[in-house]
Amino acid sequence: MTKGVKIVTIGGGSSYTPELMEGFIKRYDELPIREIWLVDIEAGKEKLEIVGAMAQRMWDASPYDVKIHLTLDRKEALKDADFVTTQFRVGLLNARVKDERIPFYYGMLGQETNGAGGMFKAFRTIPIILEIVEDMKKLCPDAWLVNFTNPSGMVTEAIIRYGKWDRVMGLCNVPVMATMTEPKALGVEKDDLIYKFAGLNHFHWHKVADTKGHDITYKVIDAMFDKDAGLPKNIYDIPFYREQLEQMGMIPCGYHRYYYREEEMLNHGLEEYNTVGTRAQQVKETEAELFELYKDPNLDHKPEQLQKRGGAYYSDAACETIAAIYGNKNTQIVVSTKNDGAVPDLPADCVVEVTAYVGAQGARNVAFGELPTAEKGWLQVMKAMELLTIEAAVTGDYGTALQAFTINPLIRSGETAKKIMDELFIAHKKHLPQFAETIARLEAEGVTVQDEIAKNLD
Amino acid sequence: MTKGVKIVTIGGGSSYTPELMEGFIKRYDELPIREIWLVDIEAGKEKLEIVGAMAQRMWDASPYDVKIHLTLDRKEALKDADFVTTQFRVGLLNARVKDERIPFYYGMLGQETNGAGGMFKAFRTIPIILEIVEDMKKLCPDAWLVNFTNPSGMVTEAIIRYGKWDRVMGLCNVPVMATMTEPKALGVEKDDLIYKFAGLNHFHWHKVADTKGHDITYKVIDAMFDKDAGLPKNIYDIPFYREQLEQMGMIPCGYHRYYYREEEMLNHGLEEYNTVGTRAQQVKETEAELFELYKDPNLDHKPEQLQKRGGAYYSDAACETIAAIYGNKNTQIVVSTKNDGAVPDLPADCVVEVTAYVGAQGARNVAFGELPTAEKGWLQVMKAMELLTIEAAVTGDYGTALQAFTINPLIRSGETAKKIMDELFIAHKKHLPQFAETIARLEAEGVTVQDEIAKNLD
Amino acid sequence: MTKGVKIVTIGGGSSYTPELMEGFIKRYDELPIREIWLVDIEAGKEKLEIVGAMAQRMWDASPYDVKIHLTLDRKEALKDADFVTTQFRVGLLNARVKDERIPFYYGMLGQETNGAGGMFKAFRTIPIILEIVEDMKKLCPDAWLVNFTNPSGMVTEAIIRYGKWDRVMGLCNVPVMATMTEPKALGVEKDDLIYKFAGLNHFHWHKVADTKGHDITYKVIDAMFDKDAGLPKNIYDIPFYREQLEQMGMIPCGYHRYYYREEEMLNHGLEEYNTVGTRAQQVKETEAELFELYKDPNLDHKPEQLQKRGGAYYSDAACETIAAIYGNKNTQIVVSTKNDGAVPDLPADCVVEVTAYVGAQGARNVAFGELPTAEKGWLQVMKAMELLTIEAAVTGDYGTALQAFTINPLIRSGETAKKIMDELFIAHKKHLPQFAETIARLEAEGVTVQDEIAKNLD
Amino acid sequence: MTKGVKIVTIGGGSSYTPELMEGFIKRYDELPIREIWLVDIEAGKEKLEIVGAMAQRMWDASPYDVKIHLTLDRKEALKDADFVTTQFRVGLLNARVKDERIPFYYGMLGQETNGAGGMFKAFRTIPIILEIVEDMKKLCPDAWLVNFTNPSGMVTEAIIRYGKWDRVMGLCNVPVMATMTEPKALGVEKDDLIYKFAGLNHFHWHKVADTKGHDITYKVIDAMFDKDAGLPKNIYDIPFYREQLEQMGMIPCGYHRYYYREEEMLNHGLEEYNTVGTRAQQVKETEAELFELYKDPNLDHKPEQLQKRGGAYYSDAACETIAAIYGNKNTQIVVSTKNDGAVPDLPADCVVEVTAYVGAQGARNVAFGELPTAEKGWLQVMKAMELLTIEAAVTGDYGTALQAFTINPLIRSGETAKKIMDELFIAHKKHLPQFAETIARLEAEGVTVQDEIAKNLD
Repeated sequence: MTKGVKIVTIGGGSSYTPELMEGFIKRYDELPIREIWLVDIEAGKEKLEIVGAMAQRMWDASPYDVKIHLTLDRKEALKDADFVTTQFRVGLLNARVKDERIPFYYGMLGQETNGAGGMFKAFRTIPIILEIVEDMKKLCPDAWLVNFTNPSGMVTEAIIRYGKWDRVMGLCNVPVMATMTEPKALGVEKDDLIYKFAGLNHFHWHKVADTKGHDITYKVIDAMFDKDAGLPKNIYDIPFYREQLEQMGMIPCGYHRYYYREEEMLNHGLEEYNTVGTRAQQVKETEAELFELYKDPNLDHKPEQLQKRGGAYYSDAACETIAAIYGNKNTQIVVSTKNDGAVPDLPADCVVEVTAYVGAQGARNVAFGELPTAEKGWLQVMKAMELLTIEAAVTGDYGTALQAFTINPLIRSGETAKKIMDELFIAHKKHLPQFAETIARLEAEGVTVQDEIAKNLD
Repeated sequence: MTKGVKIVTIGGGSSYTPELMEGFIKRYDELPIREIWLVDIEAGKEKLEIVGAMAQRMWDASPYDVKIHLTLDRKEALKDADFVTTQFRVGLLNARVKDERIPFYYGMLGQETNGAGGMFKAFRTIPIILEIVEDMKKLCPDAWLVNFTNPSGMVTEAIIRYGKWDRVMGLCNVPVMATMTEPKALGVEKDDLIYKFAGLNHFHWHKVADTKGHDITYKVIDAMFDKDAGLPKNIYDIPFYREQLEQMGMIPCGYHRYYYREEEMLNHGLEEYNTVGTRAQQVKETEAELFELYKDPNLDHKPEQLQKRGGAYYSDAACETIAAIYGNKNTQIVVSTKNDGAVPDLPADCVVEVTAYVGAQGARNVAFGELPTAEKGWLQVMKAMELLTIEAAVTGDYGTALQAFTINPLIRSGETAKKIMDELFIAHKKHLPQFAETIARLEAEGVTVQDEIAKNLD
Repeated sequence: MTKGVKIVTIGGGSSYTPELMEGFIKRYDELPIREIWLVDIEAGKEKLEIVGAMAQRMWDASPYDVKIHLTLDRKEALKDADFVTTQFRVGLLNARVKDERIPFYYGMLGQETNGAGGMFKAFRTIPIILEIVEDMKKLCPDAWLVNFTNPSGMVTEAIIRYGKWDRVMGLCNVPVMATMTEPKALGVEKDDLIYKFAGLNHFHWHKVADTKGHDITYKVIDAMFDKDAGLPKNIYDIPFYREQLEQMGMIPCGYHRYYYREEEMLNHGLEEYNTVGTRAQQVKETEAELFELYKDPNLDHKPEQLQKRGGAYYSDAACETIAAIYGNKNTQIVVSTKNDGAVPDLPADCVVEVTAYVGAQGARNVAFGELPTAEKGWLQVMKAMELLTIEAAVTGDYGTALQAFTINPLIRSGETAKKIMDELFIAHKKHLPQFAETIARLEAEGVTVQDEIAKNLD
Repeated sequence: MTKGVKIVTIGGGSSYTPELMEGFIKRYDELPIREIWLVDIEAGKEKLEIVGAMAQRMWDASPYDVKIHLTLDRKEALKDADFVTTQFRVGLLNARVKDERIPFYYGMLGQETNGAGGMFKAFRTIPIILEIVEDMKKLCPDAWLVNFTNPSGMVTEAIIRYGKWDRVMGLCNVPVMATMTEPKALGVEKDDLIYKFAGLNHFHWHKVADTKGHDITYKVIDAMFDKDAGLPKNIYDIPFYREQLEQMGMIPCGYHRYYYREEEMLNHGLEEYNTVGTRAQQVKETEAELFELYKDPNLDHKPEQLQKRGGAYYSDAACETIAAIYGNKNTQIVVSTKNDGAVPDLPADCVVEVTAYVGAQGARNVAFGELPTAEKGWLQVMKAMELLTIEAAVTGDYGTALQAFTINPLIRSGETAKKIMDELFIAHKKHLPQFAETIARLEAEGVTVQDEIAKNLD
């Protein structure tokens, strides 16, 4: 019998891989890795080789003997894997640029995981993740799938609902950030606070208690409105309305700004669109710099610059999750997972993002209890939007996509919304085979992408 | 023991009263009325007298001996009433003008029952209706309350939830319109179609079947996209998206345009705001004309012009409902009523608008069964918005009002929304005693109404 | 195109058929029947011929020209049927004798629709009804199935859940009886009372209101404890406990005696078992007499004696239901039907028995609202028992059958219950092909029927 | 500010107290106790003094300086308590003897926490625990209440539902036993197994997984049917039916024998009743022996004989729970606690018994997910029985008590059940002030206790 753990990373050529390696090296004692397979597609081959060499150097500089395998053959890699992590991006950053620029062209929000962009990312990603799951059923039926491909919640829901695969956990770094910054703002240690999160990916709230068991969420709210406390810096830093937070008695996540301060977030995005370029365009530059660094044959540790890429702690969360499963550690982690009642306002069989104790059986979700009226309503409409998006991603049905668009709180329904949707279908044609019929019709109707930059990306 | 039925109409000075009278006269044989009390407030005294005289003339021209009583003393009127109808408008049409113009000033939808305006109408109306209910508990505990004051669903919910009064039914003319126009469009008789409605007031869907029991909803959808069929003319006539209707397999109500074609409905409203004036301003003119007509001592029947006032069949629906309760007729009527499971996607104890068989016990709701994913999500978020609005109306809590505003799908959250909300508080100061503290704070902060017309209404 | 309605009655040789004919003759004006097909199996051929001739005589004596067809070929009969009624009894009355005597032999309740007997009736009946539904899908996909084969609720649930056939309604005469006897007991007319039923077949409660809409259930409770009122005579007449009825504020159905007065009902059954024979044995005699009567070539109307057979009004309810569907009459009938939320304490997709307005679309269930704590608990456990029984009937799984037995409130779990179950498997071997494996095992273990009479029935 | 933890034990004169002391001494390092107050009532004064002296000796023999206070004044003790444990028994063991013997006299199960006896224990206990909670609100509003007075689940539910006190946890030793014996039976260590429990107190099931995350519940089932494995010895050792366990895929708790093998458990109880005496009578002897031991001024540690008293590990579980809360340890403990969705088949606001991670905020319940059909039905009916019992305990309503009795699966409804209930009211008259009216009526009707032993206990 082979010894040690086999890790497979789909989308292995990602700039995040060094953080993942660092996380594994740091935890080698509790997670004895035998081999790591980085998988990518033909289009990502060059990056895969650069980052793969870098990854091997990192391990070589460590006390451990771990071999990095690079491959374009997913099936070869998956054979007998223990853990599979997914961090791929269908259509690469250029697809994200389109997700952002096409809505902004029409004055609506273009964003990676929210609004129209997030929905098209789901349309592209879900068919691929379902293929991966089918491979896993054959090649590594005992493996765990640790997903951090966005939109992480919808991807996880698709895996469980349509892929019928339960050994999966969706990760996100947003809750990690909160539990790191808030103690500092309150001037206490992380272990002085007790956290309970509930909601959906990029749409959750949390409560904080002290070690006497008393709810001190209001103190965090105080800190959020105290400039010196410096809370929270993720996403564009428009403040929430204090009365709203006090009414709910919970802390929203950073992405809630898109919903609670829709106007300002849109305006900020439009300003970037019209000046420095959207977030994906900025990230592309950062990534180029990162890959230049990674090429340096002397670099054998994660460079500082990766931090500013965004998504810090994402990979670390993945490593921690894997170590918790492997070692049955019962570590508190916030994960996307089957609800099972933890959020009683949503069906027991859908995916939620909640505090869980993670061990060999996966996530043991902490039951949060019923949410207040407003948050319950938000969750229910967002879950409907997610389910419709996933259904459209699987069936390729135009009407279902339109229903999803219409119910999305960040999309103003009507002619412009439909134009945006139609252009996005055209723009992502290559990655949306399930919508082939729709796209043919739209082409026949003469729909074309209007934003010049988006139009001219591969 | 007295014989015959005593009807009390709160807001009796309304221009709708003649339609109500017509409805009662038409149904005298099954609903033998003894006396009718029209109640209004000091500010409406003149209108009350005009319409009261007109009403008496209508009865005098009928074969029936019914006495119209006019009073400003609600308690005097309510004593031993059998049925109480409510059609009052707190702040009269001027308040509605403010509800419409203040949001439009900032580029958002101003509308009587949807968006910001509908919420403030609830804030003004709910405290008054709860006072009426308290009076009824003492003065006519066996009476039925037939409400058609808007927002009719929220008002009904407030009556049941906070007023703890179950003998109430909320009415709306929208479903009546559908069941009158659709058979014509299909070239069949009304009795050839079987209807089932479910949802919330101004936010319901329906299905249609033929007398073989087969669903023919798709035929109505066909007719909606067939210009010659002439369906539906209520509200500004922007078409729904056909793919969306086919996906849901149901017919939305006219007000769904605000949600499914948000952009166009907003633009249309803004255009009216900037040109002919908002709907309330138009209605004011119609009303003035109507009252001129009503003054004519020779007029003893409902004039044709009332039809164009909007809200046709509203009063007729009320008369039909009263007759159905009185005669235990089991008439099919679409009403706002306690859910009791008819819409299983919403709590059993909230108010919904559904097809019911109305008789002596009130509404016997037809169980609709679970709705499709999108409609379920819509209902749940709208019910959350309603519950928050009602809670804010009762408690006067600013944070709760802000939460309601934020979750309302027709309000883009952020600074402008908050400005609109704050100005509306100032504009309606006289009618919002429960928010006195908030309004004092806003006044201290210097908030004032920006729209010149709204500002200068009493 | 053919004119008039085609009725098919499976189990047409039943002694009930004359009541069915009477019901159709009475309603011919609203339900113009063209032809009636009576279907039975080889073993029932003689009865079919007797009752078939009798049925034809009844029509011949009527003003209407309707042809009775007799056949053993179900498929021939089903072709183009408009309505199919099912009143068959797998294994005939001998099977019922076994269902009754085998439990009684061991001191437990033996009854047609409750306890062990009712479960085995479900095991025998459900596979056959699912075959009929498959035939209907091919031969008369537009037909309605009106079932009054017991256990009527479970059979209806199986048809919808496993047969995926929605055009079905389950009938029972128990609610009919209540609405006929209670008005008499109160000294009022039927139309003076408003009824609302909810629950499961043979396990429902109802509330009564007067035509002022006031609940007067307590008056019916009074009448039940007033000897002269003579309420209710169905089933062995042991009184309910008054305090219990007052606590629930509802009237249980007669079968609730098995659950609320378990001890007395068991003792009564045991006494009959030990003396006059069980109910089925009594019914066999009645039936023999009936068939003797039916042979009389001069008899052309339903004989009085049929009344005492039990199940009076059963067939009449079926005729009324068929007429209501055919004529889209919106008649109030209590039926077993898909819940759709009418009983919010049970899943929306299971079958319940409730007041419905029956028309062309089938049942439009009246939403009953949440039940009190005790009745909610009873319903939930009984539905679990039903679902397990149906699942066992379909899968033939022994463990599932055992779980159903164990949760059944009328079965005391343990060794004796298991013995009863095992003997019933042996006794009904011929009609339980799905349990062939289990039965073979039990035979190998030497299980045999102990009750001498049950053992010696074919 | 005072340092160290103040513990108050209501029912401090219990024979369990030495185990509690041992548990605290063992955990002194993590739970630094300052003082312990043992509270009892006048009738228990002698025992309190014996066990109090013994407790002080135990601490004196330890390295720690902890003072034991004895008092009959509950309020004095509760002042500023940190933790309150409740292990009192209203009416002492004599009341339990009555709970057991009166039902057995009539051939029904008499048992401490199940059936009629358990319900009357709830009737006696709940009013007292609610008084304690009222005291705590005033005297130690920050304290945690750790209850192990039976019926522990119902007592906890009453505290939360009617006492409106959330800082409570109900404990039971049954799950502890399972997690101690099953690993041994499988030949593995406790840490090799992952447990997940869900259900109600004395009515829960569990699943077991290995540290690969694979469900191995079936292996435990195997072990249960392997004589040598020696599983499980608690309660009278009648085996479950293997097919039933395999169908559910879960392990029932020992008390499920009362429901799954009702016949055998009843017969066993009747045999004891007729020979050696009921369990309470046996326990009385054990207790007498224990108190003799406790009197020994040289005894300063928990004697071996306490083990056979039953309820082993109960007090240890309490100490562990207190330490986990105090130290925010996130220890896995199975507790009775507010559901919050962990068992989605029951309302989110009721009390369930589930695996939880216990820390400063109390229980963080692990969401179990939906249960299979049979177990769902069982839970729902048992929760209905619990809620009715608690309601009757609070309101003193006879009809509600009768409904609770009727729905209890271990009580055969009817005349005998009513006799048992009525006699229990008479027998416990002194401790059921809320039922004074009922008891007066029963006395007037001449109801007396039939069992000679029960009748003659004070």
